Amino acid sequence: MKDDLLRPGERVDDLQRGGFHLIQNPSAFCFGIDAVLLAFFTKVMPGEDVLDMCTGNGAVMMLLAARQKGRHLTGLEIQKEAADLARRNVVLNHAEDTCDVVEGDLKCATDIFGYEKFNVITVNPPYMKAQTGFTNPNSAKAIARHEILCTSEDVIRSCSKLLKVRGRLYMVHRPQRLVELFEQMRAYKLEPKRIRMIHPNKEKNANMVLIEAVKGGNAELTTEPPLFVYESDGTYTKELRDVY
Amino acid sequence: MKDDLLRPGERVDDLQRGGFHLIQNPSAFCFGIDAVLLAFFTKVMPGEDVLDMCTGNGAVMMLLAARQKGRHLTGLEIQKEAADLARRNVVLNHAEDTCDVVEGDLKCATDIFGYEKFNVITVNPPYMKAQTGFTNPNSAKAIARHEILCTSEDVIRSCSKLLKVRGRLYMVHRPQRLVELFEQMRAYKLEPKRIRMIHPNKEKNANMVLIEAVKGGNAELTTEPPLFVYESDGTYTKELRDVY
Repeated sequence: MKDDLLRPGERVDDLQRGGFHLIQNPSAFCFGIDAVLLAFFTKVMPGEDVLDMCTGNGAVMMLLAARQKGRHLTGLEIQKEAADLARRNVVLNHAEDTCDVVEGDLKCATDIFGYEKFNVITVNPPYMKAQTGFTNPNSAKAIARHEILCTSEDVIRSCSKLLKVRGRLYMVHRPQRLVELFEQMRAYKLEPKRIRMIHPNKEKNANMVLIEAVKGGNAELTTEPPLFVYESDGTYTKELRDVY
Repeated sequence: MKDDLLRPGERVDDLQRGGFHLIQNPSAFCFGIDAVLLAFFTKVMPGEDVLDMCTGNGAVMMLLAARQKGRHLTGLEIQKEAADLARRNVVLNHAEDTCDVVEGDLKCATDIFGYEKFNVITVNPPYMKAQTGFTNPNSAKAIARHEILCTSEDVIRSCSKLLKVRGRLYMVHRPQRLVELFEQMRAYKLEPKRIRMIHPNKEKNANMVLIEAVKGGNAELTTEPPLFVYESDGTYTKELRDVY
């Protein structure tokens, strides 16, 4: 079964969650700690419809599907190869009843889904500003990491259109850009309500931030305790091991 | 000497810094951990002119004066009794050559000081939104804690006018209001550059945030490691003891 779904250069990893596995392509679409932390941070109630934007190989969608059933999960991905990989991950995990993958551009997502269709959107968008001088700006990795095909404002604008009123956006991003993310969220009526900072260890500056924003929410932000990835001796912290 | 400067109900506390002391009035103007953390977070270079807005009894100004000499510190305070107390604290610490206290309204501060006069502004403003139903909205404590005589936007607008280009604002505030503080700072050309979250302990949400903003600065925020006040057994953390 698995062999039919695998392409050259790909491998299958165990997600350590209810028997779920994930096909990865180490050279292009491979999930990292940010996807795991985003799924961990996301709250989904039974019966809610979820969109995972920039789904890549579908890691966040599969992590959410593994955690709880009884709702629909849609993955949206602009890159054909990644969308194909995500679709095969749905099949691999026998999740066709609750998950589907759409290949498309988030900037035109209302043409695909309509307005105010989702209770929850998760997104692990490109973190880095687009720059000139890429070796290959069309490479899958460059598109996933740099704002080549979409900016943070594109993502936030689209989320605002797709979310129902009181719907929730969960985003992982770089804390260096927190000020503009807050500004853009407010501009599109997505009020940041909860953040959690991720630090490599307790002596280092944060290098990831998890943000929950509520469409039409009131202004009041909760800053949860930070999560440290490593102890000072280089081993994973208990908190991080609990997430995995 | 001290007795001449003390009024009924006041006491003198040792700041534990180079022999500096502080007259406090426990019923009205008494500095807390927020003032200590703000002074600790503030960076002042030799020769820079500093304004401590909402100076109260002058705690932040005295903590900065105790740390380093060779620059001028001005305290601005709207409440007559607090300004008088701050002035006596300057005398108590023989700091008349480097410190002075001005009684005035920060909303009209450019009438007092002119535009773009300071390299650094520190401010520990009222944290809480003004509400109706105060027992006594004219009480010194209510004015220091609630936005009765000034809002966060008043403070930020005034700081923007008073700071030189590339000048730095250091503020302590409630993290619940971080989104609007960032928005207001950006609106007045004060770019948030560095934050530090203060948590009561490592399991609790942040209850204070320290912010450094630079007038005309580029967009890139650094999130420093958080500071925890208490260990889980209720004793102060080593980090906090180092601050004191």
